[in-house]
Amino acid sequence: MDQLETPLSLVLFSGTDDKLSAAAVLAVGAAAMGRPVNLFLQYYAVDAFRSDRIAADHGVAPEATPAQRTIVAAHPGQHWSELLRQAKDLGDVSIHACALSMEMFSLKKDDLDPLVDDVEGVAAFMAGASAGPIAFI
Amino acid sequence: MDQLETPLSLVLFSGTDDKLSAAAVLAVGAAAMGRPVNLFLQYYAVDAFRSDRIAADHGVAPEATPAQRTIVAAHPGQHWSELLRQAKDLGDVSIHACALSMEMFSLKKDDLDPLVDDVEGVAAFMAGASAGPIAFI
Amino acid sequence: MDQLETPLSLVLFSGTDDKLSAAAVLAVGAAAMGRPVNLFLQYYAVDAFRSDRIAADHGVAPEATPAQRTIVAAHPGQHWSELLRQAKDLGDVSIHACALSMEMFSLKKDDLDPLVDDVEGVAAFMAGASAGPIAFI
Repeated sequence: MDQLETPLSLVLFSGTDDKLSAAAVLAVGAAAMGRPVNLFLQYYAVDAFRSDRIAADHGVAPEATPAQRTIVAAHPGQHWSELLRQAKDLGDVSIHACALSMEMFSLKKDDLDPLVDDVEGVAAFMAGASAGPIAFI
Repeated sequence: MDQLETPLSLVLFSGTDDKLSAAAVLAVGAAAMGRPVNLFLQYYAVDAFRSDRIAADHGVAPEATPAQRTIVAAHPGQHWSELLRQAKDLGDVSIHACALSMEMFSLKKDDLDPLVDDVEGVAAFMAGASAGPIAFI
Repeated sequence: MDQLETPLSLVLFSGTDDKLSAAAVLAVGAAAMGRPVNLFLQYYAVDAFRSDRIAADHGVAPEATPAQRTIVAAHPGQHWSELLRQAKDLGDVSIHACALSMEMFSLKKDDLDPLVDDVEGVAAFMAGASAGPIAFI
């Protein structure tokens, strides 16, 4: 299997804007190279994709110092949800919400932004990951 | 090497219950598909596997809001140690404590829960990871 | 592609000393086995590689309890920058700063420690990662 066929799988656990932006940048980069990308949303990430709060301020990683927080918050970049939309336009990018996390947060598919394609279990996610890299973010 | 032969390697760094649960769910999912899984425990994760505190409350990721913390803590799921026990029953799942982290926390193999198979160095872990994915959690 | 040919790619996002040390240990382990290693520095990690503060105290992960913080800070190990220097002496290890994060923190290549080889975009990083594992740290 060469690189272009090997999917990139990203398990999104964190729901802070900096980590979601970093993930979205990796997704755009991979999609631009013609590589399939699977995102699997767990815990705080699935909560961040709720349609009623996807555009809200989700904060930054707790390790950020006040100076770093100011820099990251002030940076005029595209929102991670917009980057993910572009990644989906560019290539084969699918976004799945983890069934267990959906149940934990009492969420239904309709509660999530339309960027999310479906709700799936971990076995289906693992099958899609094939032999490719799996980054936990 | 096809997917079933490619091991999934998880480096567990964090010792919070939510990240350990997310890792255990990935391990169960991979083991159920017949995929070998190697866990390598470092830093706060190795501390969480101490037999005298594995069942204790290890908290959640610091990014969790009070509302999220309440939801995650109240969720009636199986404990991550029980999920890992099931993963080991299901398939080829091995759990290794990082030798450097053991030394840092002044721990001996007997201080850890029997879920942990052995103490190994990073070179041995890397050899076991082969060409498969390595997620850092 | 066998293991020795498959590069290990590490996306460093966090800038705390414990995570940077864990990453450096993985890099040394992989380099010692003859495996190419690519590090891609984003966000707080790129800030930690500034030549005027690489040797400063960058703290530990916010999840650390006071007891854990004391143990980790008191551990007499080599600094992660020294481990990375050794990894570069041992094998094919390259360290790239993410162009987007450099711009966010208003940094130029000369602001970074000479351990950093160059500034590159995510597409170049992805090309270098090939079909190998990508860990996000």
